[in-house]
Amino acid sequence: MPLSSYGNRVNIKRPTLLLDEAKCHKNIETMADKARKKSLHFRPHFKTHQSLEIGRWFRNSGVRSITTSSLSMASYFAQDGWDDITVAFPLNVREMDAVNELASRISLTVLVESSETLSALNSSLRNRCNVNLKIDSGFGRTGIPSSCVDEVTRLTEEISRSPMLNLTGLLTHAGHSYKARSKAEILRTHEDSLNKMKKLKSRLRALTTVKISVGDTPSCSVAEDFPGVDEIRPGNFVFYDMMQHQISSCDVDQIAVAVACPVVARHPERNELIVYGGAIHFSKDFILDDEGKRVFGAVVDLDDEGWSPPVKNAFVSSLSQEHGIVSAPADYINRMHVGDLIGVLPVHSCLTAECMGEYRTLTGRTIDHF
Amino acid sequence: MPLSSYGNRVNIKRPTLLLDEAKCHKNIETMADKARKKSLHFRPHFKTHQSLEIGRWFRNSGVRSITTSSLSMASYFAQDGWDDITVAFPLNVREMDAVNELASRISLTVLVESSETLSALNSSLRNRCNVNLKIDSGFGRTGIPSSCVDEVTRLTEEISRSPMLNLTGLLTHAGHSYKARSKAEILRTHEDSLNKMKKLKSRLRALTTVKISVGDTPSCSVAEDFPGVDEIRPGNFVFYDMMQHQISSCDVDQIAVAVACPVVARHPERNELIVYGGAIHFSKDFILDDEGKRVFGAVVDLDDEGWSPPVKNAFVSSLSQEHGIVSAPADYINRMHVGDLIGVLPVHSCLTAECMGEYRTLTGRTIDHF
Repeated sequence: MPLSSYGNRVNIKRPTLLLDEAKCHKNIETMADKARKKSLHFRPHFKTHQSLEIGRWFRNSGVRSITTSSLSMASYFAQDGWDDITVAFPLNVREMDAVNELASRISLTVLVESSETLSALNSSLRNRCNVNLKIDSGFGRTGIPSSCVDEVTRLTEEISRSPMLNLTGLLTHAGHSYKARSKAEILRTHEDSLNKMKKLKSRLRALTTVKISVGDTPSCSVAEDFPGVDEIRPGNFVFYDMMQHQISSCDVDQIAVAVACPVVARHPERNELIVYGGAIHFSKDFILDDEGKRVFGAVVDLDDEGWSPPVKNAFVSSLSQEHGIVSAPADYINRMHVGDLIGVLPVHSCLTAECMGEYRTLTGRTIDHF
Repeated sequence: MPLSSYGNRVNIKRPTLLLDEAKCHKNIETMADKARKKSLHFRPHFKTHQSLEIGRWFRNSGVRSITTSSLSMASYFAQDGWDDITVAFPLNVREMDAVNELASRISLTVLVESSETLSALNSSLRNRCNVNLKIDSGFGRTGIPSSCVDEVTRLTEEISRSPMLNLTGLLTHAGHSYKARSKAEILRTHEDSLNKMKKLKSRLRALTTVKISVGDTPSCSVAEDFPGVDEIRPGNFVFYDMMQHQISSCDVDQIAVAVACPVVARHPERNELIVYGGAIHFSKDFILDDEGKRVFGAVVDLDDEGWSPPVKNAFVSSLSQEHGIVSAPADYINRMHVGDLIGVLPVHSCLTAECMGEYRTLTGRTIDHF
């Protein structure tokens, strides 16, 4: 039985995360260009790709400072020469050793939102460290609500009394932009979030020099105006994914990663394929389609140059530990055979990259992941 | 600021998967005992724990044959002396090299459900290999429907003509038992599935010696009768989890793993805590509570002996990449501080173990994961 070759991908045996370098480079360049044109400091979030090599592509685009979501991830990048890192996650005071180690050799910024964390930091810190206050501008996950001016003022005063701490920013993540389903909805969230941040800053009279840092990929991708913003920290845009496509952050042809999955069984009687590619490869995030059905990935055809646009009405409808069920029209099911490779555009590329642990470029090269 | 110590767990800094060895040993012994008493061949699925050390605990309970969900996982266990392995996943014909390598040194059983796969196997196989036919007894994920006697007969004939292949079993996974919410519902699925398997076997007159293998943890945990069954392959029971608890497969005190998560922020105004512990630690499976709310884990108090029963109405209500949101009554929120460790009983222990990549026993020892 002949196996589909797909040129250099003939030797793919198991689920493999393909990276289209050209698309990824373009995503990086587009965002770096926008930041330059808008005079925004660009501090990309590296939690999506978690790769030293992809980090170097950012460096080649002029990026000198980055964001990570953990101290361990910051250490991974510090070893590759990154010396200005914001850990955009509420400081975990059980990791003061890692904070001290990093703060001794790089410009480290940690995220604080309470007196409890500030005092733990103050009592254990041995090196100077920058602090961003985490502000909740409407997402409602964590941070000090932007309306709590007194609380923010109290924390800024505590920070100013500490010889080790340097308040450099008010940081927010307008993650509620993920609920948007159009560019207009993204922009409404963006504007509302920025208004809240501006208002807060205007009421902190002593802090006219403190910077405002914002971060979500939908807003950074779609917005043209960033009034009052000093720094942007998007991450997901490096690959994008089907969730961002549904939100309207990107076109589907900007998605830079796809999982190659071998077909292991066919069920033409119910228009389904079973592929080797499950929850341990994709994670289990899903989006809902127009009919309310769960979609765990969009199906594409792999070819020598990468992959096609999504096959109409073909999607991953269910994931077990290692199985994926693909639902698709009869003509698609009929042209696929056991042993063929299908491509799947992931719903959430950050989690899929985390699960897969490495990338394979279209020329067959392996790229690292933390 | 004092950090909660929890005895030997004072040095836990990041999300850590705790394993209660005593509970795990008891889960293994209980299932091994049941198999012995019912004269069932016990071929536990190792995809849940994926650990050489935990595998040895099974060996100490008399287990000599195992199940894995991939050829790579089979190789991992073969290196530790396991020489009778069923890969309970539709054979991926792109991995014939791995099949040949394994079949040259162990008794390997692969899963087949189509002529396409059989001919790929026949044309590439260099060593004798056992085959199980995958039968769908009602789950509807994959396998030949148990009613398709002609199709099963045709495949058995193809197998019997091959000098390399040896048909040893009809294998099914009654995964629809996961929809049950009581022991009675589990038993109904179990009985229906077994009736279908028995009926199929009775109609395959030439195959009176072929074995029937069943596998789901709910049925294997709850059922006392296994008429017509030769082999059981449960896996999840080694740890259980909140999903199995909801199904009624286990009591909550049989759950043998919990993730220790540092508290990084408090939001008493909305009865929430933010913990370091997110989708990359738990995966994103959830169950729905009685009110239809998503639950990503149950909260327990860690102590020197392990952990408490679940704290009433305290649960992980949302997961981002590294953040977990814990919703809990005010008295719980008020007694927890930034820097404390909370315990979370996972919804799906197989995926959580896969994400975490290693275990830590209650005495602080590290245990491997594939």
